[in-house]
Amino acid sequence: MAKTNLTAVLYGVEDLKLEQRPIPDIADTEVLLAIDCVGICGSDVHYLVNGRIGDFILRQPMVIGHEASGVIVKIGAKVKHLKIGDRCGIEPGVPCYICSYCKTGKYNLCPEMKFCATPPYDGNLTHFYKHRGDLCYKLPDHVSMEEGALLEPLSVGVHACSRGGVSLGSLVLITGAGTIGLVTLLVAKSMGAAKVMITDLVQHRLDVAKELGADCTLLITRENKAELLAEKVEILMGSKPDICIDCCGAETTTRLSIFAARSGGCCVIVGMGAAETKIPLANALIREVDIRGVFRYCNDYSTALGLVSSGKIDVKRLITHHFDITETVKAFEIARHGLGNVIKVMIHVQPIDSNNKC
Amino acid sequence: MAKTNLTAVLYGVEDLKLEQRPIPDIADTEVLLAIDCVGICGSDVHYLVNGRIGDFILRQPMVIGHEASGVIVKIGAKVKHLKIGDRCGIEPGVPCYICSYCKTGKYNLCPEMKFCATPPYDGNLTHFYKHRGDLCYKLPDHVSMEEGALLEPLSVGVHACSRGGVSLGSLVLITGAGTIGLVTLLVAKSMGAAKVMITDLVQHRLDVAKELGADCTLLITRENKAELLAEKVEILMGSKPDICIDCCGAETTTRLSIFAARSGGCCVIVGMGAAETKIPLANALIREVDIRGVFRYCNDYSTALGLVSSGKIDVKRLITHHFDITETVKAFEIARHGLGNVIKVMIHVQPIDSNNKC
Amino acid sequence: MAKTNLTAVLYGVEDLKLEQRPIPDIADTEVLLAIDCVGICGSDVHYLVNGRIGDFILRQPMVIGHEASGVIVKIGAKVKHLKIGDRCGIEPGVPCYICSYCKTGKYNLCPEMKFCATPPYDGNLTHFYKHRGDLCYKLPDHVSMEEGALLEPLSVGVHACSRGGVSLGSLVLITGAGTIGLVTLLVAKSMGAAKVMITDLVQHRLDVAKELGADCTLLITRENKAELLAEKVEILMGSKPDICIDCCGAETTTRLSIFAARSGGCCVIVGMGAAETKIPLANALIREVDIRGVFRYCNDYSTALGLVSSGKIDVKRLITHHFDITETVKAFEIARHGLGNVIKVMIHVQPIDSNNKC
Amino acid sequence: MAKTNLTAVLYGVEDLKLEQRPIPDIADTEVLLAIDCVGICGSDVHYLVNGRIGDFILRQPMVIGHEASGVIVKIGAKVKHLKIGDRCGIEPGVPCYICSYCKTGKYNLCPEMKFCATPPYDGNLTHFYKHRGDLCYKLPDHVSMEEGALLEPLSVGVHACSRGGVSLGSLVLITGAGTIGLVTLLVAKSMGAAKVMITDLVQHRLDVAKELGADCTLLITRENKAELLAEKVEILMGSKPDICIDCCGAETTTRLSIFAARSGGCCVIVGMGAAETKIPLANALIREVDIRGVFRYCNDYSTALGLVSSGKIDVKRLITHHFDITETVKAFEIARHGLGNVIKVMIHVQPIDSNNKC
Repeated sequence: MAKTNLTAVLYGVEDLKLEQRPIPDIADTEVLLAIDCVGICGSDVHYLVNGRIGDFILRQPMVIGHEASGVIVKIGAKVKHLKIGDRCGIEPGVPCYICSYCKTGKYNLCPEMKFCATPPYDGNLTHFYKHRGDLCYKLPDHVSMEEGALLEPLSVGVHACSRGGVSLGSLVLITGAGTIGLVTLLVAKSMGAAKVMITDLVQHRLDVAKELGADCTLLITRENKAELLAEKVEILMGSKPDICIDCCGAETTTRLSIFAARSGGCCVIVGMGAAETKIPLANALIREVDIRGVFRYCNDYSTALGLVSSGKIDVKRLITHHFDITETVKAFEIARHGLGNVIKVMIHVQPIDSNNKC
Repeated sequence: MAKTNLTAVLYGVEDLKLEQRPIPDIADTEVLLAIDCVGICGSDVHYLVNGRIGDFILRQPMVIGHEASGVIVKIGAKVKHLKIGDRCGIEPGVPCYICSYCKTGKYNLCPEMKFCATPPYDGNLTHFYKHRGDLCYKLPDHVSMEEGALLEPLSVGVHACSRGGVSLGSLVLITGAGTIGLVTLLVAKSMGAAKVMITDLVQHRLDVAKELGADCTLLITRENKAELLAEKVEILMGSKPDICIDCCGAETTTRLSIFAARSGGCCVIVGMGAAETKIPLANALIREVDIRGVFRYCNDYSTALGLVSSGKIDVKRLITHHFDITETVKAFEIARHGLGNVIKVMIHVQPIDSNNKC
Repeated sequence: MAKTNLTAVLYGVEDLKLEQRPIPDIADTEVLLAIDCVGICGSDVHYLVNGRIGDFILRQPMVIGHEASGVIVKIGAKVKHLKIGDRCGIEPGVPCYICSYCKTGKYNLCPEMKFCATPPYDGNLTHFYKHRGDLCYKLPDHVSMEEGALLEPLSVGVHACSRGGVSLGSLVLITGAGTIGLVTLLVAKSMGAAKVMITDLVQHRLDVAKELGADCTLLITRENKAELLAEKVEILMGSKPDICIDCCGAETTTRLSIFAARSGGCCVIVGMGAAETKIPLANALIREVDIRGVFRYCNDYSTALGLVSSGKIDVKRLITHHFDITETVKAFEIARHGLGNVIKVMIHVQPIDSNNKC
Repeated sequence: MAKTNLTAVLYGVEDLKLEQRPIPDIADTEVLLAIDCVGICGSDVHYLVNGRIGDFILRQPMVIGHEASGVIVKIGAKVKHLKIGDRCGIEPGVPCYICSYCKTGKYNLCPEMKFCATPPYDGNLTHFYKHRGDLCYKLPDHVSMEEGALLEPLSVGVHACSRGGVSLGSLVLITGAGTIGLVTLLVAKSMGAAKVMITDLVQHRLDVAKELGADCTLLITRENKAELLAEKVEILMGSKPDICIDCCGAETTTRLSIFAARSGGCCVIVGMGAAETKIPLANALIREVDIRGVFRYCNDYSTALGLVSSGKIDVKRLITHHFDITETVKAFEIARHGLGNVIKVMIHVQPIDSNNKC
């Protein structure tokens, strides 16, 4: 095993450094993973730029990164379903297992959740990372390590579609064609949605969405009035959508979601906006359009892996940029400024393809 | 049968008159009812004062009233479950029966709904009223005509609690101790809620709520900050409520509902407020607190009748004032200005107790 | 309009005749259809051979057929969504619209249901047939009349998968690769099932299932022990299925479904077997494997049409034999004896392709 | 702390002994409890008489008992919600916490479940018993230790009613008025059931059911035909029940449940009968009457405790006999032979009332 453990540590706003950290010891329920690659998520960028997200405030140095895959190099005595050498996707949140949320199958709401790269818990953009064995999902040989890392955002898409009740024949509107919007599109189609429409501020993203299966797209601007956009959506889809999934969280897209949804339908809001939002609440209420949030995911990693391993969806198209861990700061620059039609930036802790089998 | 048909007609804002109308003919799916009594609802008052509720605008004279009971005096050939002389509660909305909402059991969202005293459809504060037979519910002998009329608001309470998923052991917060808040309280307790807390601006209403079974109450003012009220609720209930049912629809109570609900819980909004509302949406989303509207009711009349006829709940306590139909204008004055600790005003089209059997 | 109305009438066991019948008049909620084609269903054959299915007993001559499509030739005043010349799939059951089943969105359980070719109600293997307008679904130009007729069995598949809760990532076992098994396979895949396995007594049917997307197949015999088959299923699928859908209703397949399902999963039984069945009930109960029946379908026609019109599934492959209405008796011979690798026999009331647009 | 640990150990069929056992050590997630009292369950008797239940076979000596309450005498470092001296109800099954069942809120189906007095795991009819802290529920002062022990069967009733979807206005038929039937009755009424009917072979049990709130009762014999009983049920209840909960598991009661349930309703089977059962499956399927098993309970202890502590239900009436742990063999004789109108036999490990506070 390598003696060094190069790690990307966020020290504060605009202060991201690489440094050596000790290789962690593991408990008997844990495994040690040699991380292979880590995607950069919007929240990682947010902590770099703002030092906080809502009530989660960076008060001490924190290892960044939570969309990771790795190879098992050490294994605790109680971990039975894995062995050394297994290539794994890593579900980054460790719940308490015993609170009422955990016991009722809603562990994403566990108040004791320790989530990678959410202060004060360290993330996994590092060479060696220890984790609960039960949160590591063995990848079949034909699934790449990059796909393993992408299970994280893909799980958000699965959770969002589940929360919205997407099913056979659903008409779905997605606002926002970034990573989350695109994975949500892929999942919605896989669940049998009859038609998926997607909106964005950037034409290139809509082009990618088309390529990934969107049935129709709409380029919008920040100035558009939500009511008018909702009318356009109805015309383009031929009917009001059953389910609107807002993957931006901007006031305009949230408002659009509400106006657009058919009576008795629902709006799922994945993207988190300002603390306070002015919405056409009466419009939603009188038409019994439910408004539902999405907080990460819960019991969705296996489903996400199944989608990828069965070949039903192809998430690889989402990765637009690759960097080595030593280029972490540069990688964040690209992700942050949306340069080069970036969708997903992947940071490789080990050389590309060193753990891929096909 | 009486030759006259005295009817309360709303001609416009502040213009409510009694007049004679022809006795209607019935189709073979309909019955003719001699109306016994009609409760005044907040929406009736709203039309009198404002001439509109949202997009429903009074553009022609409209018979007022929709919380009614009556006695069958004539019966269409296709109506099989009723007979002349049957005393009935009247579900006031006639859906189209054939649209996708009707066929999927959500007829309250039917776009062709003809609802009593919602423009342009006439209500039933009148001597003789025709209605679809399948929307008339025969009252057992021991249920009074007044209770029959109260099935209407009670059905709103049933629908609200169903939408919120109130069940055994639920902790429920209700904001607003008017008629709807109080029936919601009665229903929530009947569904097995472990604890129901209720808030209002008026102490007297809280006293009534206590009498009807509220486990705790909180007097609030319009100036109270929702966050602080939510903390008080948590302290008083011993835990955050699972379900908040906002029976006011004021911005403060909606905000309180969101802050107060436990993660993974829900806010049901029954009272309709302004078109636009500023709410702490991010707080709801990140904690997966669902926001659900309530539009009237759907398949709830039988349940409401069962609650009353089994003696599980007593709604009679809600009626604080009685008037004859000839005193309709005066009755609306009381209802409108909240005089005399008014909760529910009942207008009698036929002399009190003329159709009651016990 | 043609003056004749050639109609296939079942007079009793083994007594199926063609005869002229009057062209029916329509009510204002109805349309008159020139029937295009009608598929033969197992239940049609059953009435021909046995004169009854359970408590439904043929006591008077009955027009046979209920899987039909047709063209509107006359239209009632209250039918708004159709016009003369519209090509339609015909949902064959007319519920009462007003009972508690109808109002709660479970009209398939309506006790007043009038269902085509279920005694005493006439079916639609006839030139001119009247029907409720709201039960006719307009076919887009690119959908053929044969596909329109196949919406009927396809709706059974949709209902079965819905009852089973098939969703993203589900492992599904289907027993029986006849028409219903095959459409259920197509629907399950469309709903995102990760893996669908199918069993049958006949290899040819399994070959068709493979062609239509089955992930694995198992040839079984009537002598196989259900427990052992369940073990084979687990090995072949890599895990116990979440949902078993029994499209045979034979004791063996029902037993297989129960033994095969994972704990907490469910068995949906579509095929109806003997009145009494010996099942390993304790095995199901202790593992909380739910057993759910399927009676026809409910609100599934639109979804079925969406599946076909979007090109998500191709049902045309199911039709193996074509006959003219004048050959009805011969067509039933083929269907009845399973000759020529028959799956679905289609009877054409009008010449093939006379109403198809592509 | 006492130096001895008198314990009731089942050595084999008809071989139940009291013996001294070492006081167990605890892990940091565990507590040590001084057991107060333990109810005798039908399964305890079953192991005594038959040495097995289904695939659970007694192969080595096993401490008996699983309906227990106790007082915390030692506490692990990671147990935060309890303190020494707390009086607790003890949920007797320890799941693995990490399998897919545990993570999706169905831990009762966990294949690694270690359940008290289910071979090979020891029960808790013993002086000192160690248990996971998160499975101990602190009793409020006004709840007795006996009520704490009864939370176990009461949780079965909660789970059964939840599985059946009992809600406001439900008509419920319960077959069997033993402990489980009676707690199910209490829970169903608390959930808002409009009417609960109960059947039994013994009039005295029906009398107790009446006393506890049953709306109607029916004395049956083993010779009664299920179809005829179902007709009687419909007449007595005024309508077919929505939900039938079979708390016997005898073929007759299971059959009665199926015939009796209304179309679209469900049968919940709590009592476990023979491995194979002949049931009128076609009758259930064609009417979409779901059949659902109940395996213990899951997330129901808190609800059960809430029911008791709020005073909504009184379970104390169920206890008909009290014995000291030294009289264990005699206590089992009573329970086994149903002597003295026995319902629940309670064995006291500590003197009666030594831990009760009111």
